[in-house]
Amino acid sequence: MKVVVDAFGGDNAPKEILKGSALAAGEYGVDIIFTGDREKIIQCAAENDIDIKFAEIVDCPGVITMNDSPTAVIDKHNKSSMSEAFRLLNDGADAFVSAGNTGAITVGATLITKRIPGVQRPCIASVLPSANKPFLLADCGANADCRAQFLRQFAEMGSLYMKNVMHCENPRVALANNGAEKTKGNALAKEAYSLLKNSKINFTGNIEGRQIPFGDADVVIADGFTGNLILKMYEGVAKALMNGVAGIFKKNIFTMLSALAVSGGIKDMKKQFDYKEYGGAALLGVNKCVIKAHGSSDSKAFKSAIGQAVKFVKTDLISEMKQLFEEVSVNE
Amino acid sequence: MKVVVDAFGGDNAPKEILKGSALAAGEYGVDIIFTGDREKIIQCAAENDIDIKFAEIVDCPGVITMNDSPTAVIDKHNKSSMSEAFRLLNDGADAFVSAGNTGAITVGATLITKRIPGVQRPCIASVLPSANKPFLLADCGANADCRAQFLRQFAEMGSLYMKNVMHCENPRVALANNGAEKTKGNALAKEAYSLLKNSKINFTGNIEGRQIPFGDADVVIADGFTGNLILKMYEGVAKALMNGVAGIFKKNIFTMLSALAVSGGIKDMKKQFDYKEYGGAALLGVNKCVIKAHGSSDSKAFKSAIGQAVKFVKTDLISEMKQLFEEVSVNE
Repeated sequence: MKVVVDAFGGDNAPKEILKGSALAAGEYGVDIIFTGDREKIIQCAAENDIDIKFAEIVDCPGVITMNDSPTAVIDKHNKSSMSEAFRLLNDGADAFVSAGNTGAITVGATLITKRIPGVQRPCIASVLPSANKPFLLADCGANADCRAQFLRQFAEMGSLYMKNVMHCENPRVALANNGAEKTKGNALAKEAYSLLKNSKINFTGNIEGRQIPFGDADVVIADGFTGNLILKMYEGVAKALMNGVAGIFKKNIFTMLSALAVSGGIKDMKKQFDYKEYGGAALLGVNKCVIKAHGSSDSKAFKSAIGQAVKFVKTDLISEMKQLFEEVSVNE
Repeated sequence: MKVVVDAFGGDNAPKEILKGSALAAGEYGVDIIFTGDREKIIQCAAENDIDIKFAEIVDCPGVITMNDSPTAVIDKHNKSSMSEAFRLLNDGADAFVSAGNTGAITVGATLITKRIPGVQRPCIASVLPSANKPFLLADCGANADCRAQFLRQFAEMGSLYMKNVMHCENPRVALANNGAEKTKGNALAKEAYSLLKNSKINFTGNIEGRQIPFGDADVVIADGFTGNLILKMYEGVAKALMNGVAGIFKKNIFTMLSALAVSGGIKDMKKQFDYKEYGGAALLGVNKCVIKAHGSSDSKAFKSAIGQAVKFVKTDLISEMKQLFEEVSVNE
């Protein structure tokens, strides 16, 4: 299995990217191809004692930064690590993993890797922690404006992903809404509700924001605007509260001592609510496996993202999706 | 000042409602009028040793429950505690506070209390805690489908509310969005951005979900669908995490002992993130003060909600809003 890694994507590139890839190569036995400035990659690996002998490097000088326009990636003259990675993916590599500019990854996946026939819009699907077990949120921001049919497809693709990659049998799919009753929602949610109700997936109805962190659904569906706010509220509230808890233990000698007794438990809980455990977000609906790792990924998070790509490719999700949308287009 | 209280609204009615009202009458020196079944009110007060001699009771037998249709409240033959309360508000009372069915309160406020001339849609505005200082979120769910002009009015009303009731000078108003850059958003958010940019309020741009719990804005604007998901994600994530923290301390004798050292800090933090500190949600844009207390309000939360009504009435917010929308309609 060949995994292309954008060595210059993300806040901690290239060091944490190289380190995470080295860990992944050891653990999963996959071939890694780095894209990026060869000299800088070799120098960074040497300085940080990272063994990258396992990897091939495809030399390219540029980087698409967070401030660049996402469409830069499709410019044929663009020599960035991300553009080059998408070319390698088209030329036969099995997967692409990057912690870089989300917009550019979405544009590249849609216009270079291209949509699976029948898919109206690819979506960004993230596996998130809950008080119970992890769940998938789609769309997390690829499509700010959606039609109800897009949401039905996100549900179908998300359901398949949870079954194949996360081994969740018959995933419970719910629609993020401003109330649990079936009459609730804005115009889009109401239309999506009836489409989902009549689809073949295991649709369990609407889910309110207050139930989402308790894992009441295995797949939560939303348009990209709403999904992005759900995702980032999750991150923000967790951060604000965990900062608050940390502050309490730093107050005086007694609180510091008590931290010793509970630090194991706090660590376990942090692990439970840590996105790094679950890798990155998958671009669902395109012809190859494209994984977007969190922008602030450290080596551990990036290793998980590659691990996710490995599972994605092994379960042959793409073929199943192709079949799904072929059937749908025949039946409609 | 006369405050009408729906004695049978909310999960803990009538006991916690009566208790909270008694506390409020003592603290703020306002006149309370309870609506509801007189006999049940007197019996509950006697059983729980709550002195309600301070209050007038307007006897009516019915209750609008969480399962009733919101429009039941406007039925002229409806003898519920909520319908009667809206009639008393129209007949000269200064404010109405209820922990009952949100939909029914919104319908009653819009169709019985009626909109301020020039207001297109009333909104539900909640004061929420943050890691920094409290902020206002509007709309929290009264309008699932919005036009951009509605959002501008929510911003204008919310800004006035934070200034008058929460004593926040020149409130920073931000638009909830899926990115901070001004080009971000769905079609509605993009249109609202340009309207807000050209309004007289202190518009500071877009705010992402991950910044909302850090209090980076004093007023956060969203359509009611999105706002409701933001509100309930806040509640849900906080609950899931605080459950997790509580579980850690219950593990063994050492963790239980350590809880002693930090319990004060945890209590302070809980207080900081406790909605009960800030009362209820205000229905903004109608001719009188209508406050919706949290459905699960205990006496303390309900007392705060009455306190909020007192501040609302004292600062003469309604007159200022009337003036604001008069000016707007003259200028447009």
